[in-house]
Amino acid sequence: MKGYVFHGPGQSAWEEVPDPAVKEPGDVIVRVDAVTICGTDLHILKGDVPEVRPGTVLGHEAVGEIVEIGGDVRTVRPGDRVLVSCISACGRCGYCREGMYGQCRGGGGWILGHRIDGTQAEYVRVPYADLSVHPLPGAVDNQDAVLLADIFPTGYEVGVLNGRVRPGDTVVVVGAGPVGLAAIATARLFAPERVVAVDLAASRLGAAKEFGADAVADANEAPEQLIDDLTGGLGADVVMEAVGVPETFELCARVVRPGGHLANIGVHGSPAMLHLEDLWIRNVTITTGLVDTHSTPTLLRMAAAGRLPTRRMVSHTFPLDHMQEAYEIFGNAAETGALKIVLGVPQHEVVPVPPAV
Amino acid sequence: MKGYVFHGPGQSAWEEVPDPAVKEPGDVIVRVDAVTICGTDLHILKGDVPEVRPGTVLGHEAVGEIVEIGGDVRTVRPGDRVLVSCISACGRCGYCREGMYGQCRGGGGWILGHRIDGTQAEYVRVPYADLSVHPLPGAVDNQDAVLLADIFPTGYEVGVLNGRVRPGDTVVVVGAGPVGLAAIATARLFAPERVVAVDLAASRLGAAKEFGADAVADANEAPEQLIDDLTGGLGADVVMEAVGVPETFELCARVVRPGGHLANIGVHGSPAMLHLEDLWIRNVTITTGLVDTHSTPTLLRMAAAGRLPTRRMVSHTFPLDHMQEAYEIFGNAAETGALKIVLGVPQHEVVPVPPAV
Repeated sequence: MKGYVFHGPGQSAWEEVPDPAVKEPGDVIVRVDAVTICGTDLHILKGDVPEVRPGTVLGHEAVGEIVEIGGDVRTVRPGDRVLVSCISACGRCGYCREGMYGQCRGGGGWILGHRIDGTQAEYVRVPYADLSVHPLPGAVDNQDAVLLADIFPTGYEVGVLNGRVRPGDTVVVVGAGPVGLAAIATARLFAPERVVAVDLAASRLGAAKEFGADAVADANEAPEQLIDDLTGGLGADVVMEAVGVPETFELCARVVRPGGHLANIGVHGSPAMLHLEDLWIRNVTITTGLVDTHSTPTLLRMAAAGRLPTRRMVSHTFPLDHMQEAYEIFGNAAETGALKIVLGVPQHEVVPVPPAV
Repeated sequence: MKGYVFHGPGQSAWEEVPDPAVKEPGDVIVRVDAVTICGTDLHILKGDVPEVRPGTVLGHEAVGEIVEIGGDVRTVRPGDRVLVSCISACGRCGYCREGMYGQCRGGGGWILGHRIDGTQAEYVRVPYADLSVHPLPGAVDNQDAVLLADIFPTGYEVGVLNGRVRPGDTVVVVGAGPVGLAAIATARLFAPERVVAVDLAASRLGAAKEFGADAVADANEAPEQLIDDLTGGLGADVVMEAVGVPETFELCARVVRPGGHLANIGVHGSPAMLHLEDLWIRNVTITTGLVDTHSTPTLLRMAAAGRLPTRRMVSHTFPLDHMQEAYEIFGNAAETGALKIVLGVPQHEVVPVPPAV
């Protein structure tokens, strides 16, 4: 089969790789019908995630059809259409028992396209399938579903739920890339008074409005002032960091109100200054986290009911073998306006229900 | 009357000051029967808390008798024996309505010995008395009660409750001064598997054991290793910072487990490095906070029932007019072994109930 292989920093190619096979009784093999590229994949290509070994197939988000299952798999069968989650879960370790699947210590966690071959290929082996793939309702198209593999649960769990958004809150989201947009859209589910998006790119601030931001601020033009004005000088109830650099984290810590929540979503490569000389007295809660995907079944139901703006996030679609071109467009998002790129088959074929005899 | 007056960094004296008087209808005047000195008072004397104006009487913890009340006061009367809390609460602002009295925006918060004259005097004016003093059960002596003005609620609320200690947890408390010891003692109320105390001073580690630490570690001798050994390399469920310097905060961030809580209690004067490059993926929750004292009524009931080791924390007692000597002994705790110093009358006179006629 073909897959997109990481060969070390700056080197990668869509090329022939061995077909995956069931290795453990909890494994399934999925034929990849739709897949996407994550900002984290770009980090890997830059060499920021050194534990990814050269030779690894990248990708941790997919929709596809089960073609083979191991002897212990109980919840899916060959022919089932499934979402492949970015998080695999052994289901048996202490963290899985508490629903903290991202921290799985039984061999799961974020492993696809990281510690084992991932989803940017024609087929993928998914371990611990009972807790790591989700049967898909027919009402959800591939291009909507694939956004629930990582982007939407990450924005929702690591941003909105960790940040404990409440009705009437002023919510600030710093960074209006795909995860920030998912955080904006899912923050609205909790009826905040307002959502303020902060970014450097005008195009992303425009997208933020489409996803539900009431106000937007250019990160270079003192967004603190706008937030001060909107909140009577108090600061925001909830602030989410969806960029991953020290400057944006420190901005978040400046604009959160006493008693407020700062939810870090960004993937960081370096430390930030934590101004404890200001914060010690302010009852601030700061959270970090990798997504657990415990919300994925809920989000799938909401997507099936048309309650999530997933489609709006798909800026480009390509056949699967255009992976290299898709990486180039996604890696140049500031110029191309790329949000999420779906490769493969964006729609799925609805099998008509046979007429009753 | 006499009071202990701050005259600018390094300058202070027990001297004649004007008697306080009721200024607002919510005020009471309390005759100070017992008072103590807080580490925060030492910070003020060093000039670390610049908003304290020269001429201010210090102190934010006291037990005494109400001698005068304003026209709006409803919950106490002259003659009542009360605890003066370190936090005054207007009761009407948004923060007070949510129980976050430390953040009061109606003129309360930490004001005694900070923004207005405090308790280290023969008399003190307490604003917003209905929510800022607590009638004292007769069973609680002055020296026990005065520790509930700040130290015990701070360790309990900002450390134990913010850190969400649960049964079976491994809890690490970095800093075994009075607040750290109160955190250790009140963490035990939640049946942790073990409490580990970390400090530089052998005398404080000895005190930590008396307050309920199961294990102690010298901060200079790689406490990380002990915590690793105790937790199978995972890290602690809850870590509390009760020192207030960057090094101890960063130690806390190194020893907290994925999914764990870091509760900052320390008063900080400078920023710390937050190693987001490690923490972003680890589901860590960091909290900061000034005490709200919402737990004070509960802690008073527990003290009356003999459930808190308050008495063990009183290392020295003095008459009220020995304030300067007490400051010297408290400021030299490493040599004097001082924990908390109670000035005034440590016991109170129990008025016998008149026999039934």
